Amino acid sequence: MKSDFVENLHLMTLGRLVALIDGVFAVAMTLLILDLRLSPQLNLIPGLEEMLPGFLVYLITFASIVGYWFIHHANFRYVSGTDARLVLLSLVSMLFVTLFPVCASIVGAHPLEPIATVCMSANSLGYCVSMWALWSYAAANRRLLAEGSDPGRLHDTGRIMGMVAVGLALAIPLAFLSVYIAYAIWILYPPAVGWGTRGRKGPSQRPPAA
Amino acid sequence: MKSDFVENLHLMTLGRLVALIDGVFAVAMTLLILDLRLSPQLNLIPGLEEMLPGFLVYLITFASIVGYWFIHHANFRYVSGTDARLVLLSLVSMLFVTLFPVCASIVGAHPLEPIATVCMSANSLGYCVSMWALWSYAAANRRLLAEGSDPGRLHDTGRIMGMVAVGLALAIPLAFLSVYIAYAIWILYPPAVGWGTRGRKGPSQRPPAA
Amino acid sequence: MKSDFVENLHLMTLGRLVALIDGVFAVAMTLLILDLRLSPQLNLIPGLEEMLPGFLVYLITFASIVGYWFIHHANFRYVSGTDARLVLLSLVSMLFVTLFPVCASIVGAHPLEPIATVCMSANSLGYCVSMWALWSYAAANRRLLAEGSDPGRLHDTGRIMGMVAVGLALAIPLAFLSVYIAYAIWILYPPAVGWGTRGRKGPSQRPPAA
Amino acid sequence: MKSDFVENLHLMTLGRLVALIDGVFAVAMTLLILDLRLSPQLNLIPGLEEMLPGFLVYLITFASIVGYWFIHHANFRYVSGTDARLVLLSLVSMLFVTLFPVCASIVGAHPLEPIATVCMSANSLGYCVSMWALWSYAAANRRLLAEGSDPGRLHDTGRIMGMVAVGLALAIPLAFLSVYIAYAIWILYPPAVGWGTRGRKGPSQRPPAA
Repeated sequence: MKSDFVENLHLMTLGRLVALIDGVFAVAMTLLILDLRLSPQLNLIPGLEEMLPGFLVYLITFASIVGYWFIHHANFRYVSGTDARLVLLSLVSMLFVTLFPVCASIVGAHPLEPIATVCMSANSLGYCVSMWALWSYAAANRRLLAEGSDPGRLHDTGRIMGMVAVGLALAIPLAFLSVYIAYAIWILYPPAVGWGTRGRKGPSQRPPAA
Repeated sequence: MKSDFVENLHLMTLGRLVALIDGVFAVAMTLLILDLRLSPQLNLIPGLEEMLPGFLVYLITFASIVGYWFIHHANFRYVSGTDARLVLLSLVSMLFVTLFPVCASIVGAHPLEPIATVCMSANSLGYCVSMWALWSYAAANRRLLAEGSDPGRLHDTGRIMGMVAVGLALAIPLAFLSVYIAYAIWILYPPAVGWGTRGRKGPSQRPPAA
Repeated sequence: MKSDFVENLHLMTLGRLVALIDGVFAVAMTLLILDLRLSPQLNLIPGLEEMLPGFLVYLITFASIVGYWFIHHANFRYVSGTDARLVLLSLVSMLFVTLFPVCASIVGAHPLEPIATVCMSANSLGYCVSMWALWSYAAANRRLLAEGSDPGRLHDTGRIMGMVAVGLALAIPLAFLSVYIAYAIWILYPPAVGWGTRGRKGPSQRPPAA
Repeated sequence: MKSDFVENLHLMTLGRLVALIDGVFAVAMTLLILDLRLSPQLNLIPGLEEMLPGFLVYLITFASIVGYWFIHHANFRYVSGTDARLVLLSLVSMLFVTLFPVCASIVGAHPLEPIATVCMSANSLGYCVSMWALWSYAAANRRLLAEGSDPGRLHDTGRIMGMVAVGLALAIPLAFLSVYIAYAIWILYPPAVGWGTRGRKGPSQRPPAA
């Protein structure tokens, strides 16, 4: 009975944590549109033209958040337990998710200023570092991981996050050469994550022979 | 044990994906009201009159989002597994859901301009095409589908989405004849989906004889 | 296997429907605060004083939404299956939930005008009628209900909703005598629901002898 | 069968209540950013500087909400049943969660005025008192608690909430000496909760010998 109780604590903690995180992601994805407002002073066509840069920033930020959710999901697939530190690191990573709409708003208002892109890159980097810390902690505490987790895949996940973090860290100084370098890194990063996690999706794609 | 692990991955992926999607739908449905604001410059009665076109657009958009959730739900009832591409297609379809409040805002501000209705029709069409792509992919990969799925019903689901997409595609040029044609298509489409999926609800309506 | 599939359809439909509805309630409860903004033109104390009527309306509306969630929850406890009409009626009732922040905003801006209270009362009445329709439909289709549901309690639930609806319908004309009658009905209604559903909570309060 | 039905009622009530609460927390955490807007009248650098106080208030409030979620989660881990009063107390505590973005907005606009910090402290205190009432009620009704709950840990949870409430109550008068005392209490409180609940996380950290 004691064992069942402990089991329930694990599941309830993990379930609620994931529900909270998915809720934060869902709201952040949807709040991104709050800056996409038609100016009431303009006619329709000029108003839509004025919205265009914000719309492009919206598309890029949406793709980034989707990529972050994907990383989060790819990591948490292997997590089967929690402790206070894992919960804490998860909630710190949510801080960066909620700041995404703010960064998108800053970039949308000043799309060609390097400092604006630095806000976005730094926030993305903060998310990656917090996820990397979470991941390192989980990997070092195998009892937090699901039985049957493949060590090679765990290692791959950490490597992809490291690569993304290096890219985002480079985007900060390179934006002062040209903001388009930062945009290119942001645009290229979600497909890179998708490509990088493709191999690890194996078990879902090829069900094991009974 | 390995098999259980793979099973858990499937369920966790599908559960989190559906939770994220339902969260995005719930927030998008609720954010629609952000444009329904009483003007502080007007008295109550003229203020309410001024809100009326926005309120009608709100009703139409709410019904559309409900219809889209219904399509999504009707599709995902048959899905029992995921892979990276299914997750990716789902997240692309969420892009169009989050853009709904923006389109409703544009139509509410310029209800009689064809270009405004084109934004809404194009966004709806984008959602349908992304759902159709998702559905074709799932149908072509039977291992993603629940055992016991009836091929005839799967076929019907695809056909309804195709019909809705054709209607929305026609709404784009026809709006330049009259915007009311676009409104008529938007209003007629959710009941059409409801009518079209009615037959497929059979298993829920008539429980099989033990 | 067929039977399992049908069972899964039921559960997935009901689970997703409830998740969507809880998401809409959660967002609507939180969006209520969007009108509680400190005026940037005023000093702190006059600004807080100016917020006071809106804050009182916020408290009343929050209590109403909580009451509605309670009614919804009390009803859905007995629901174990779904069909297309039940889903449709549920989504119609969500329309009224999303309109709550709009009504609260109208009442907060014009707290002493009968027409403003009529908006709120009519929206609340709309919710009650939609829930009553949902409930009547479920009660008339016993296969949608959980086995072991007590007919007496089902009957009570319907009666409470009917009483609330009558109260809200009376609030519409009586507001033209005095808006305070409408406020009194709104304030008294959530405790009345709580009191009315108290008896039906019996099974949770007194666990059956093994 | 009767027993299964009662069991299902418990689970559905608890599951929906927790889902609603997590949804409210997720939206409140994300809505905090609504006051972090770049002024359109300023250039980028002065605009970012103007956002700085609001950003610091954002960080403190985010940490507080995370701390409150942690308290809520730590409490509800031991709850396995519900009744009407538990649901009611939970929903009252949500009132304070939804008011957090409002308090953050007031403090962000007037960071050095004691009255502004009193709004935040009083709201936090309200949350703690409502959670303490909920917790006392659950602890006095052992049938609401999961089997195997350790009485010592239950007692600790109550004590931590009491300590936090005393700290927040002191922050109200002390803010009139210096607002920085209120800030210090807010900043110190979430780590104190984390430290206080650390011990109680034991079962998750040390899985029992089989």
